[in-house]
Parts: sequence; C-alpha cells; structure tokens
Amino acid sequence: MSNERTEISSLGEFGLIDHLTKNNEIRNASTLLSVGDDAAVIDNFGKQTVVTTDMLVEGIHFDLMYTPLKHLGYKSVVVNLSDIYAMNATPTHITLSIAFSNRFSLEALDEFYEGVYAACEKYGVDLVGGDTTSSQKGFIISITAIGEVSPDKYVKRSTANKSDLLCVSGFLGAAFLGLTILEREKKVYSETGIQPDLENQAYIVGKLLKPEARKDIIEFLSDSEIMPTSMIDISDGLSSEILHICKQSNLGCVLYEDKIPINEEARQYAYKLELDPTACALSGGEDYELLFTIAQADYEKLLLSEQISVIGYMTAPEEGSHLITRGGNKHALVAQGWNHVSK
Amino acid sequence: MSNERTEISSLGEFGLIDHLTKNNEIRNASTLLSVGDDAAVIDNFGKQTVVTTDMLVEGIHFDLMYTPLKHLGYKSVVVNLSDIYAMNATPTHITLSIAFSNRFSLEALDEFYEGVYAACEKYGVDLVGGDTTSSQKGFIISITAIGEVSPDKYVKRSTANKSDLLCVSGFLGAAFLGLTILEREKKVYSETGIQPDLENQAYIVGKLLKPEARKDIIEFLSDSEIMPTSMIDISDGLSSEILHICKQSNLGCVLYEDKIPINEEARQYAYKLELDPTACALSGGEDYELLFTIAQADYEKLLLSEQISVIGYMTAPEEGSHLITRGGNKHALVAQGWNHVSK
Repeated sequence: MSNERTEISSLGEFGLIDHLTKNNEIRNASTLLSVGDDAAVIDNFGKQTVVTTDMLVEGIHFDLMYTPLKHLGYKSVVVNLSDIYAMNATPTHITLSIAFSNRFSLEALDEFYEGVYAACEKYGVDLVGGDTTSSQKGFIISITAIGEVSPDKYVKRSTANKSDLLCVSGFLGAAFLGLTILEREKKVYSETGIQPDLENQAYIVGKLLKPEARKDIIEFLSDSEIMPTSMIDISDGLSSEILHICKQSNLGCVLYEDKIPINEEARQYAYKLELDPTACALSGGEDYELLFTIAQADYEKLLLSEQISVIGYMTAPEEGSHLITRGGNKHALVAQGWNHVSK
Repeated sequence: MSNERTEISSLGEFGLIDHLTKNNEIRNASTLLSVGDDAAVIDNFGKQTVVTTDMLVEGIHFDLMYTPLKHLGYKSVVVNLSDIYAMNATPTHITLSIAFSNRFSLEALDEFYEGVYAACEKYGVDLVGGDTTSSQKGFIISITAIGEVSPDKYVKRSTANKSDLLCVSGFLGAAFLGLTILEREKKVYSETGIQPDLENQAYIVGKLLKPEARKDIIEFLSDSEIMPTSMIDISDGLSSEILHICKQSNLGCVLYEDKIPINEEARQYAYKLELDPTACALSGGEDYELLFTIAQADYEKLLLSEQISVIGYMTAPEEGSHLITRGGNKHALVAQGWNHVSK
C-alpha cells in the first residue's frame, strides 16, 4: 500500500464514484448501459439469466490484518462467480456495493478496486453498477453476479439421481489450513512482534486469500458433453455441500475418504499443525471447488481431466449419507461447515 | 414488536434462511429457480434486463430508534424499485443481503422481512436470492433489483434535449421534514423522556418512513404514449438530480420556484420549523419522485395527470442551470443533496 492518504470526504460521493469507476471496462456486448445511471441495462438474446449475491463483512469473513485489500477485492468477485459457475452458467455482469468507515483512505479503496477489476478481467465480467456509502464500523462488501445460460442448461442441486457418481474439482482443505496458519501467525505477531515468514506457505495461504472460480471445469464439462445431474460450489466444506445435494435431491450417498483430493503440501501442513487432513477437507470450507454428480455413463469422458476426482456415489435416501474411512469404517456424514451466523 | 426473543444462533444459518424465505411467493413466470440454490434463474423473452443496487447502513441511512423494522424492509425494496422505474422499466426480481449484530432477534428480522414481502407484493416483484450474515455493529441491507424493458425503451439521464420540459411527479420536501421532526423528537425524548405524539405529522413522517416508488407514473407515461427524453429518481434532492441530467445531457436549465410542487401540509410544517419549503424540496432528498424531461410536443398529453408538474425547461449548456425565485431573482442551482459519504 502506498503511504499517501487522501481523505475520501475530499471527493464527495459522486467524485468517489467517478474515481472508482474511471478504469471500468466493458467486455460484454450485452452491456447496453453501465455505471452512471439509475440502473444498468443488459440485453438478452433468448438466454436465461442467473443471479446470485454474497455479502462479506470485516471481522466476520475476513481480517484486514492479514488480507491484502487487492486480494480481498479479487476474492469478493470470485466467490460470487463461483456460484454462477455452480449453475453451469457463464457470469457476465456484477454490481458491487461497499460500506466503509472513515479509517479507510482512497488509496485503500483503490487497492480493493484493483483486485475487483483484475477478477473482472480474468473472468470476462462487466462491473455495471453499485453503491458506496459509510459504515459505522469496518468494511462491508455486497456483490451481485449475473450470468447467462442456454435455455434449460442450468444445473440445480436437487436433480441428482441414485447411482450417479459424486465428483469434485481440484484439491480440498487448503484454504482452511491457510486460515489456520494466518490466525496462528497473527497471534504470534500480537504477542511477540515477530513478523511471519509465509513464503513457504504460498500455496496454502494463496488458496485462502486468492481463490479462483472453476471456469475451466465448466468449460471442460461443456467441451466433453458431460451434463452434470446436480452441482454446487464448495464454500462451507465438502460435508455440508454433499448434504445439500442429498437433501435437495432426496438421496443418500457413499463418500470414500481415500478418494478425497488433498494436495500433498496441504497434507504435510495439516500433520505439522496436528490436524486431520480429511477433516480439513470435510469441514474446512472456502475452497470454491465444484461438487457435482454425473450419470455413470459419462464416467469415461471424465477421465480426460486430471482436475476432477470421483469421490463416491449417490444412493437411495434410506441408506443415509456415509463416509467410508481408509480403515473401512463407516461414519454418518455431518455438516460442520463454517457457519458465519452462529459463530 | 412482540416481546418474544429467539436467538438467531439457535437456528443456524440454513435454518435462518429457511425460516426467512418460507413465505416467499413467486409472481413472475420468468422466475425459473428462486432461493435455495447457488443462484436464481430468470428467463428472458427478448426483453432487456435492467439492474440496480443500493446499500442501507444503520446509523448512516436510518435510525432504528424511530424506524419501525417493517417500514425499513418496505423502504429498502422501494428505493431500489424506484431506480428501475427511473429507467422506464418494470422491476421483476430482487436479491436481498443483510448483516446484523447479535442484538437482533429473529422476531426483529421477521418484522423486517414482513415489510420486504409487503413491498414485493405491492410491486409484483419476486425475491429470488440473498445472503444473511453477522455484522460487528448494526444492521446493513444490500438489495439488487432487476427489471425488464422492451428493447431500447429504457430512458437514460443523458438524453434530454434543449427546450424539453422539465417535469416532476408528486410533491417534494416532505421526507426531509419528516426526518427533521423525528430527529427533533428523538432529542426531546432522550433529554426529557417525553414520548412524541406524531399522529398529526402522519403525512410528513410517512413520506420518510414508508415511501412509494412511482410505478403509476411509468404506467401513465406508457398509456399516454409519452416517451420521456431523460429520467432520474429523486433520492438526493431536486437540485442534485436536475444537475445530474444537465451534466449528463450537456445542457443547462431554468427552474421556477413557484412551480415546485410542495404539499400544503408540508409547507405549513416547514414554516413552523422555520425552514424554507423550497430549500427542503431542492436539497431535502429521499422523496423518490421521478424527475424527467419530455418534448414540448408531449405537453398536452401530460395535462391528463394531476400527479405531474412542469417545473422548468432545458437550455443550451452555456446558459447554465438557474432557479427563478418567486420574486423574479435568478440564482445558480447548486447541489446540496444528502451526501452519505462526506457526512
């Protein structure tokens, strides 16, 4: 962060909006009208529109002591886009509202917006509106993402079938380990003043601070002509998301511990921190990977991707939802995901 | 408000979402998928989509000491719908995110949602998604509204023409007077413990606490085949909004003080409070009336509505933007609207 400090009050609200949106680029031809009017206007060509929204609150969802504002801006967009991809849709537009206390300078907001625009560029999304206001305490971010999908190609959580294969993209558990490390280092720093050296934890910390949405998986599924029978993104931990699919599809499932994809570096870190890597994957959350089911007939097509693991299968609802451990034991799956409300 | 108090933490996040959305009704056939998945799905039939978003923060935009939560829920929706109408579009869907500290009970949230659903019903809008989370302090509301408009029928701020008539719906200034009364009564109450009797100020206080969006004006304009050349809703005060149209359309204007519509009850209250009624209308804000320009050729059609006043006309930009007072004096228009950032 630069050391300059411009008081936001020196710009006024409209000056601030002009400042924050002056580098806003339009990437979608469907964006007929963007920031600067009462509302944005998005054209439609017979496609279906998909909408999602997420709110991120300082002190609840992020800690600015170890979260660079640019990363926060990037991640705020990504977590919303992840929800659009989880519908098998393509994000096209976002709106962004922020509230901030007077401890934030214009330079701080600029850093945040740099991350927002970086994510918009990476994912080909247009920022088309928003609101900026004061808060009594902390930084609050609310993003709504809009996407498009060919008629009736969207994928719900409630349409998995018995015997479908349960699949997941990427690796799980690293974001939770990243959070654990950062919280530990924050404690060390506040007690001893020793600055942490996080260079060796770049992978794990990066998974928490700068997650990516799995656009590539949606593209792979489309290119491979695999139509998932249900899909959800993993924001609250694998168990919680599997149970959403089970409940909404009225099914049970079997999940194999040894099939859950955990990165080797993350696994070693878990052991170092005396944590069970499987528990990190099941309950850790914030991985933003895609969890989906496919018909068994599509299994062969899946083998072309190294980024997708088959971790189990769907069963009749009366069989319940179970984890089969490495040792062959059977445990009921329980949701112990991050719960921002009850925390 | 009932005296029961259910701790929100007793429901968990998903329990809370289920609870808050169990009475959610779907009114638009275009709502293919609503709350309960990663994103909502909205169908399109060749129409153009309009999107807007607004954030309301406790202590900045509202004071819960005198704002009933049901009214707050209603108003939070209405201020967003007003932006959609200001595009000459029809609102169809909203998403709603809220953050709240643990001083809020479930009963309090229920009251808030009662107001949200009442507004959805009144305006025929579907609530299709949202997020609920904790805040460190206070109540924060973020709503995104989506609307539809026939191709290229939306009305921008930037397309007024020289000599167009400047028009406004309803009456102005009452919301600001309502705020002034409530702030004064709050002060009296905190100093003396005397509860205010606001019954005689129902009109003025109602304009602040429970504003309506001017759906009827958009319908009248459509029925009368009047296509406004530019339009904006009045959230920051008449001066500020007129100057937005002037700046974005690259024009000047003449505004006549004696044409500014001020309700007689509001005028009397302004005098009682030793305020200039014209200043309340020019700078008061939160009226949520529509300000628009029309071609002079459409003037006759306008006479059928008692809800629309012609208050001036657009000029060449070099003539500047002026108010002609009752006494015939000419003053430059200045924006002194509510500015939530610099306050």
